[in-house]
Amino acid sequence: MNATPDATTVQELQDLANRLRVHSIRATCASGSGHPTSCCSAAETVSVLFFHTMRYRQTEPAHPDNDRFVLSKGHAAPLLYAAWAEAGSISESDLLNLRKIHCDLEGHPTPRLSFVDVATGSLGQGLRAACGMAYTGKYLDKASYRVFCLLGDGESSEGSVWEALAFASHYGLDNLMAVFDVNRLGQSGVAPLKHCTDFYRIRCEAFGWNTYLVDGHDVEALCQAFSQAAQGKNKPTAIIAKTFKCRGIPNVEDAENWHGNPLPKERANEIIRLIESQIQTNRKLLPKPPVGGSPLVSITNIKMTCLPDYKVGDKVASQKAYGLALAKVGLANERVVVLDGDPKNATFFEILKKEHPERFIECFAAEQNMVSVALGCATRGRTITFVTTLAAFLTRAFDQIRMGAISQTNINLIGSHCGVSVGEDDPSQMALEDLAMFRSIPNCTVFLPSDAVSTEHAVYLAANTKGMFIYTPQENFEIGRAKVIRHSNNDKVTVIGAGVTLHEALAAADALSQQDISICVIDPFTIKPLDAATIISCAKATDEGGIGEAVCAAVSGEPDIHVHQLSVSGVSERNRKPSELLSMFGVSARHIIATVKHTLMN
Amino acid sequence: MNATPDATTVQELQDLANRLRVHSIRATCASGSGHPTSCCSAAETVSVLFFHTMRYRQTEPAHPDNDRFVLSKGHAAPLLYAAWAEAGSISESDLLNLRKIHCDLEGHPTPRLSFVDVATGSLGQGLRAACGMAYTGKYLDKASYRVFCLLGDGESSEGSVWEALAFASHYGLDNLMAVFDVNRLGQSGVAPLKHCTDFYRIRCEAFGWNTYLVDGHDVEALCQAFSQAAQGKNKPTAIIAKTFKCRGIPNVEDAENWHGNPLPKERANEIIRLIESQIQTNRKLLPKPPVGGSPLVSITNIKMTCLPDYKVGDKVASQKAYGLALAKVGLANERVVVLDGDPKNATFFEILKKEHPERFIECFAAEQNMVSVALGCATRGRTITFVTTLAAFLTRAFDQIRMGAISQTNINLIGSHCGVSVGEDDPSQMALEDLAMFRSIPNCTVFLPSDAVSTEHAVYLAANTKGMFIYTPQENFEIGRAKVIRHSNNDKVTVIGAGVTLHEALAAADALSQQDISICVIDPFTIKPLDAATIISCAKATDEGGIGEAVCAAVSGEPDIHVHQLSVSGVSERNRKPSELLSMFGVSARHIIATVKHTLMN
Repeated sequence: MNATPDATTVQELQDLANRLRVHSIRATCASGSGHPTSCCSAAETVSVLFFHTMRYRQTEPAHPDNDRFVLSKGHAAPLLYAAWAEAGSISESDLLNLRKIHCDLEGHPTPRLSFVDVATGSLGQGLRAACGMAYTGKYLDKASYRVFCLLGDGESSEGSVWEALAFASHYGLDNLMAVFDVNRLGQSGVAPLKHCTDFYRIRCEAFGWNTYLVDGHDVEALCQAFSQAAQGKNKPTAIIAKTFKCRGIPNVEDAENWHGNPLPKERANEIIRLIESQIQTNRKLLPKPPVGGSPLVSITNIKMTCLPDYKVGDKVASQKAYGLALAKVGLANERVVVLDGDPKNATFFEILKKEHPERFIECFAAEQNMVSVALGCATRGRTITFVTTLAAFLTRAFDQIRMGAISQTNINLIGSHCGVSVGEDDPSQMALEDLAMFRSIPNCTVFLPSDAVSTEHAVYLAANTKGMFIYTPQENFEIGRAKVIRHSNNDKVTVIGAGVTLHEALAAADALSQQDISICVIDPFTIKPLDAATIISCAKATDEGGIGEAVCAAVSGEPDIHVHQLSVSGVSERNRKPSELLSMFGVSARHIIATVKHTLMN
Repeated sequence: MNATPDATTVQELQDLANRLRVHSIRATCASGSGHPTSCCSAAETVSVLFFHTMRYRQTEPAHPDNDRFVLSKGHAAPLLYAAWAEAGSISESDLLNLRKIHCDLEGHPTPRLSFVDVATGSLGQGLRAACGMAYTGKYLDKASYRVFCLLGDGESSEGSVWEALAFASHYGLDNLMAVFDVNRLGQSGVAPLKHCTDFYRIRCEAFGWNTYLVDGHDVEALCQAFSQAAQGKNKPTAIIAKTFKCRGIPNVEDAENWHGNPLPKERANEIIRLIESQIQTNRKLLPKPPVGGSPLVSITNIKMTCLPDYKVGDKVASQKAYGLALAKVGLANERVVVLDGDPKNATFFEILKKEHPERFIECFAAEQNMVSVALGCATRGRTITFVTTLAAFLTRAFDQIRMGAISQTNINLIGSHCGVSVGEDDPSQMALEDLAMFRSIPNCTVFLPSDAVSTEHAVYLAANTKGMFIYTPQENFEIGRAKVIRHSNNDKVTVIGAGVTLHEALAAADALSQQDISICVIDPFTIKPLDAATIISCAKATDEGGIGEAVCAAVSGEPDIHVHQLSVSGVSERNRKPSELLSMFGVSARHIIATVKHTLMN
């Protein structure tokens, strides 16, 4: 790579940057919404990256050998689309369909487009996913592709960006390059560090990055910085680019109150003429081809080589069963990766960790980063990813999980320590809100396995099925198919339980059967999709917005079905033993028995 | 304050630290669970803070003039309880009831205890809340109390901690002091920065803090550092304390795999004897009294001085109505504070911002920090706090909102841009999951106002009512009381709508009435509590886990009620105009009409 490009190349890249500006202005004028101002500050960066620095096959944007580009400042999407138009993947006329119905050129990029790996637009998403891609490139693919991420200065206020910076230096991701587009202006005003690029430099260096300050509108300086950055070893590189929002547009450049506004149509032509008057060349620029080296991988059809090795009556913690199942899956497929948020009992992963340390990614207490790194690892079908921490702590990553759904991701999330049965370890560690959260996520599957065998099946189903899977975990399990655990012809009531409460329901069934009352007990197995056909009579829930309400909604069209919910409401009052809490919140076997009897009397 | 304490004081503080160790070991042995190892690393820090540095009335722990202490590493709760036992607020025998039923000494601190302002235990919570307290002290109370926060090194991996560091230096909070207890060990292994305290120093300095490195077991060094820190102006101070986990206990000190484990009972007596053998003094130490200066404040009984100034048929964006209502409330009570996460349209707050800049806290794009700063501002009844951003971005702060409920907080959260009517601005900006999230939070009220008048009433109700309030916002509104907007004696079906969908329901009612079909239209006003008594027939929802499911659950005991839900499922397919999306997801007036007709046919 030439550190110092010749004068012609500099002019061509500068001209291309201006063409990207023109495309961005035209597209946002046509849609009547969007962010041309945020596009213009980064035009030179994108021009240099796409047509001087990055190596990729423009005809196969998702090729595994290609360098990756993540537009973390997703609202600058028109700039990204313009670059791919210049690369030949989108027609220029299509750019004018930005944000229009039936057009995949959305206001923020999503993987509906072949050149987008993860959805962005919710601030601070990109760098973490880029870390996952770079980790995969360096440690799993051992390939030469690099990962480039363009961030805004506004989104740098998100703490999760600093989680990513800490992660990247901890793992020495020298194949990762972040560009901070410091254009001074946030959404509603001036960003906290203004144009003081030195603060960005000091902070990035403190977090262990090689850092370069550069004039973000100087094509030659950008080329040199990226070239030098490529030489750095064992550290990721940050390019702090001082830029101006809406660069090149008189009276709008560096002005407040233009965020998210297209230029007035009556001024657009005049502005476009002005920019075009500065363009001196017209050669079609082509990217450099990739170097290659990414291995062929398979992440499908993972067979359960032997059945779960548990006997009826075995007492096995579902966390332990999960760890063992994961080790089995991990040994069966070399692309299985586990990300861990420093929870206790990680010792169950020791088997996998010991044999394949590169496939056990310790993410420490930084859950937002952990989820997004997993998203990055899973892009382009490179890995099967399991993310593990306490279920309560996954609430910290709700936005990242939400964006995972929009990213059409394939990651699997496993939360332990669910419900009040955590006991004395307090409400701060108890997951009571997690099911409501997960059920609100589109296109995902939610498991709530109740024993070791179902846990192992859940892990295999999650590993083999596309889409986001959530949660830990006999005969033959299917997604969306409930298990009827107890059943007779005399059943008076159906009780639905999952996880800990399934065991309470079974205890209630035993006690009631001695009083000649038979009940049907159902384990829904997956909470989403819920097996509405099998669920008939009585809902048993752990939390508001959780199972009980899902059941109510599922049976709401059936007038003969009466639903009684037993659920946790309120904050746990002082710490109690698990059995005390199950009792306090009315979700114990005793309460199930009383409810069944009350139902039968009415 | 003496920078260098005399030898007697040093010995007394060291002895007290050892007594705190003994209390912590005894309490966790009695409960059979807990974190004595994490207590022992910070014993000297807590001894010096509570009995040399901090100023407070130990008989009135919640007095507004007192210095605040936030135990961010909440799992070291026994150490906190031990300090208050030494200060005389808890009996030593009570310490042995740690984690026992009916005892407020929980595994992690909550405000059930008078000396706890915010619940901690979910990692990384404390420093952000401490920032809110320090902001209130410096800019609103203009008082001399200071705020001390003790963090663990493990939780420093949370990006939200770095949001707090950035916030504190941005606002020059020189009344804030953070102690990083760098004991090297996290939950399941070594923390990422190990014992390299210099990395912590560099990072804290890069984030604009005065920073001191200190041996965290050297009482004299700690006294000096806190004393020097008190001289610093316009910058917050970080004390980086190098410590050892389980300091003072042979074979356990600095050893792995002891996190969260009490000492074996058979060894405890021997260890306690060893520690007690080092104690040379027994004088009862007393804290220094506070300086005073906190003003008397009132945050109750805020009157609506004039009725909402809107006419029927006015088209006012609910965001604008919210901003105007907030300005009214803010002018009526000088303790109203608005926290903003850099969303667009913040211009509606300009009135308040201009007249009372100190009461408009720009938090930039750092939502976790924003919510916790609000929690801190609201402690001890010092302020009425409104937190504002896009509803979708509040998902980033789910854990902080969850901990707010455990903290018994009084903050009000307002999310804008709800549902698919955001339109072309993409799924990343659309709040579809927020209602499921908020409804899962115990002890909060969820508003979903549908017009400017209901918005204004919601703001006043939120300002005047204790507990957490969520959401923006006629005649006379009450929490938990739905409004019947259309009603006749011939109503065939009841349609429930809220926010944008209420307007779709009203359009459907108009169209149906021309076909001689009358329907009842209900605005639930608050989604939690839901007015189950008023809701009779037909549910209209915007998202899974949202209103529709709440309605289903509420009417599940009524066999004659048939619920039909219209709700958004799946990720928005490419960007559309609001009307297109309402139609695509089947929640438009046209779909309501079709559903009503279908219901009437069956």
